[in-house]
Amino acid sequence: MAALAKRSEDFPRWYQDIITHAELAEGGPARGTIVIRPYGYGIWEQIQRQLDERIKETGHENAYFPLFIPLSFLEKEAEHVEGFSPELAVVTHGGGKELGEPLVVRPTSETVINYMFSKWIQSHRDLPVLVNQWANVVRWELRPRLFLRTTEFLWQEGHTAHATSDEAREEALRMLGVYREFIRSRLAISAITGEKTPKERFAGADKTYTLEGLMQDGKALQMGTSHELGQNFARAFDIVYTAEDGSRHHVWQTSWGVSTRLIGAVIMAHGDDFGLRLPPAIAPVQVVVVPLASEDPRPTEVAHQIAHSLMDRGIRVKVDTELHQSFGWRSVAWEIKGVPVRVEVGPRDLASSSVMLVRRDKREKLRAPLDRLEDTVETLLREAQDALFKESDKFRKEKTYIPNSFNNFLEAIQENPGFYVMPICGERRCEDRLADEASASVRCIDSPELSEAGYDNKIAGILNQRRGCCLLCGDEAAYTAVVAKAY
Amino acid sequence: MAALAKRSEDFPRWYQDIITHAELAEGGPARGTIVIRPYGYGIWEQIQRQLDERIKETGHENAYFPLFIPLSFLEKEAEHVEGFSPELAVVTHGGGKELGEPLVVRPTSETVINYMFSKWIQSHRDLPVLVNQWANVVRWELRPRLFLRTTEFLWQEGHTAHATSDEAREEALRMLGVYREFIRSRLAISAITGEKTPKERFAGADKTYTLEGLMQDGKALQMGTSHELGQNFARAFDIVYTAEDGSRHHVWQTSWGVSTRLIGAVIMAHGDDFGLRLPPAIAPVQVVVVPLASEDPRPTEVAHQIAHSLMDRGIRVKVDTELHQSFGWRSVAWEIKGVPVRVEVGPRDLASSSVMLVRRDKREKLRAPLDRLEDTVETLLREAQDALFKESDKFRKEKTYIPNSFNNFLEAIQENPGFYVMPICGERRCEDRLADEASASVRCIDSPELSEAGYDNKIAGILNQRRGCCLLCGDEAAYTAVVAKAY
Repeated sequence: MAALAKRSEDFPRWYQDIITHAELAEGGPARGTIVIRPYGYGIWEQIQRQLDERIKETGHENAYFPLFIPLSFLEKEAEHVEGFSPELAVVTHGGGKELGEPLVVRPTSETVINYMFSKWIQSHRDLPVLVNQWANVVRWELRPRLFLRTTEFLWQEGHTAHATSDEAREEALRMLGVYREFIRSRLAISAITGEKTPKERFAGADKTYTLEGLMQDGKALQMGTSHELGQNFARAFDIVYTAEDGSRHHVWQTSWGVSTRLIGAVIMAHGDDFGLRLPPAIAPVQVVVVPLASEDPRPTEVAHQIAHSLMDRGIRVKVDTELHQSFGWRSVAWEIKGVPVRVEVGPRDLASSSVMLVRRDKREKLRAPLDRLEDTVETLLREAQDALFKESDKFRKEKTYIPNSFNNFLEAIQENPGFYVMPICGERRCEDRLADEASASVRCIDSPELSEAGYDNKIAGILNQRRGCCLLCGDEAAYTAVVAKAY
Repeated sequence: MAALAKRSEDFPRWYQDIITHAELAEGGPARGTIVIRPYGYGIWEQIQRQLDERIKETGHENAYFPLFIPLSFLEKEAEHVEGFSPELAVVTHGGGKELGEPLVVRPTSETVINYMFSKWIQSHRDLPVLVNQWANVVRWELRPRLFLRTTEFLWQEGHTAHATSDEAREEALRMLGVYREFIRSRLAISAITGEKTPKERFAGADKTYTLEGLMQDGKALQMGTSHELGQNFARAFDIVYTAEDGSRHHVWQTSWGVSTRLIGAVIMAHGDDFGLRLPPAIAPVQVVVVPLASEDPRPTEVAHQIAHSLMDRGIRVKVDTELHQSFGWRSVAWEIKGVPVRVEVGPRDLASSSVMLVRRDKREKLRAPLDRLEDTVETLLREAQDALFKESDKFRKEKTYIPNSFNNFLEAIQENPGFYVMPICGERRCEDRLADEASASVRCIDSPELSEAGYDNKIAGILNQRRGCCLLCGDEAAYTAVVAKAY
């Protein structure tokens, strides 16, 4: 196994090395596609299961809508088709014949789902409609990057219809909150939330809310979005309900989604130069028990006993039975895979009725008695989860800057990429300058995390003073923007 | 709501009516596609979760492989491409440009998965490789039928690689056994197992094992298959391992799958003229609690209390809160949806500290005391599950016939469709006659269920006598075939 690249020297190569060596994924034969290997898919299964619970608890039901959408459907919402046209994969032949109308492979499902909603929704009694689907989607990618941008990816997409604008807004914000809690408590990433500017909005939405994580190279990663679609699709697909008083109205809608991109976020937020570091909450294997190869059969026997007693506590455990590999090689392999806790069992350990525990996040060794080992391991897992979030939170706060001037910003962001907070006028012209001159973009505006309790109060204070003028043009500022380079 | 068609009068319309009125699914806008509505998808989620457990318990890991496959990949295995070519959907344009090589939307994933296996497998230590994926696949359908044949459907497909032919056979049979147990114990369908003839085999397999259920119209439905792929794909994709002695060999492989078709099987095996009858094991809602609308708030309060105490037992419960609908209308609606147990709560019931229980499968009413209601409901659910399987088993055995002559068979199968057991020579010529003259096919050969304990011993006896000569041509018989009309 070749050594991993170092984060500080070549972040993109380091990212790719981890994906390869931890056996998370690799490219498929068709350009831009991804093969998610069992270990990577195991992470996705944890994300899926735990997020699905939250989606159901908030009243949504899963359903499944077709992969193929008639091209004409996309054309019904003008902004939507303009936004997605360059990314479409198109089926022109089926069953050996050329099709009368080409079919688009779904890049997202607003059009087909809203077509169905128009059949299902008649009365106010049918509202709200709250559905979600777990599915694959296709967006043609010119510069694919495993987990971050692939031609096909897996995601969930929620789609809802409501009687009023207020209810739709409440729903969009509720799901933003669900994502925020999930990303912070399970993925241990201190993502910030906020609104997108019109330039960065979802094609067809009135408002887009976003979650932005800060990766270790100082670049932002959009981790999820929640949209207020207003009545745009309701008008395009004629989704109308009859109110109690007999009047007829278009519904108000939302959609929201997160994808396998979250796996990329976990890698880039938590990995170190020794490999992946998985938050215990979503690690497919939380504890690996590694017996030393020896003539004494006891280490292997005890390893299995330990595994069983940990599994009884609901912990996800694996016993490493690859005894033909050297102990050192196996330790390195589990480190690369980022398993949160490693339990090493050798004959000498057993003589003292203890084992060696290694916490992956801190790479700390700890000798622990076999007695009450389950409690010790549970504590370590809890501590590791907390520690990863705290690290991520600290990193994000340290990498949040308030530039004095646009020139100061232009220099600073090249040297120290991170979140740059600035008042901005809201004109497209100034936003375009960020892209042209700094290869950066507005990640979100008016992020509540910038003034959250316990955070640097200075930021809130300075921003209040500065809010007056756009950092770029000096005109009146419309909002406080978080600007960053982004994936 | 229009009345359901009767099974005896128009089985296909009855099937479609149930799907519509129980809100299981409907056609999508692109021809042949399906929209699986929340209630139908809830059944699929139960199937998926419970089968996934079994797939993991037998040592398999989930992974995900790309939707798009280069056309040239399919062409590497001659029989495979011949079998699937007429059913392919082809992407010719991506990102606004015509593609250099067209991409096929996977009809099944042997080619792309085996391409990856050829990279992953080097040594005997890498074997066996045991992966599964839950995915959508596309096969162009000229005569689509919801759940049974749709252009896109959902399934799981297992793919494995082994060092020896024996191990691969063991695996293919193990998964056939997993499906059999699942279909019988969870779907409550008395499916039979057996091998496919060469004519009916999967394109590219050496052997195909199948599970065949008998629907209430006497037609067979293939419910799942498990294939021994031999070394066919290993040769096409050059999947070679080095044995302990240094020699190099192609791997031996299997693949196996079941799909959303299982939902169609459940409808056609168990439904009655009043709607769906769901086996409790896979019902998304096992118990519905229906309070009577009344000025007294207690029925609704008690309904929620009952629901909570049932949920505490792990039972899937819903409270019907649609009090604006008439009680009769709601009862009919829940009957159509096939919820196994209905609990009716009215003010008069509460006066006697009892409720009315209705078991859907038998449409039997039973007054039960509120005291220990959870026990009573658990018993009813268990009994309903057993009763549905027994009914299915009895039906299948009653509808299994042994014709005296080919002419006798030709007449009988038109009048009484079912499983027709006959010795057959194994020549393609005779198999084709079954299709041409009886619109029937060999569903499987040498089915062990035909001589299973407790089954009509006569069948085994008669077959032993008859095995001598093919019922069609009189030549020496090669095996005992189960012949039926099929979906």
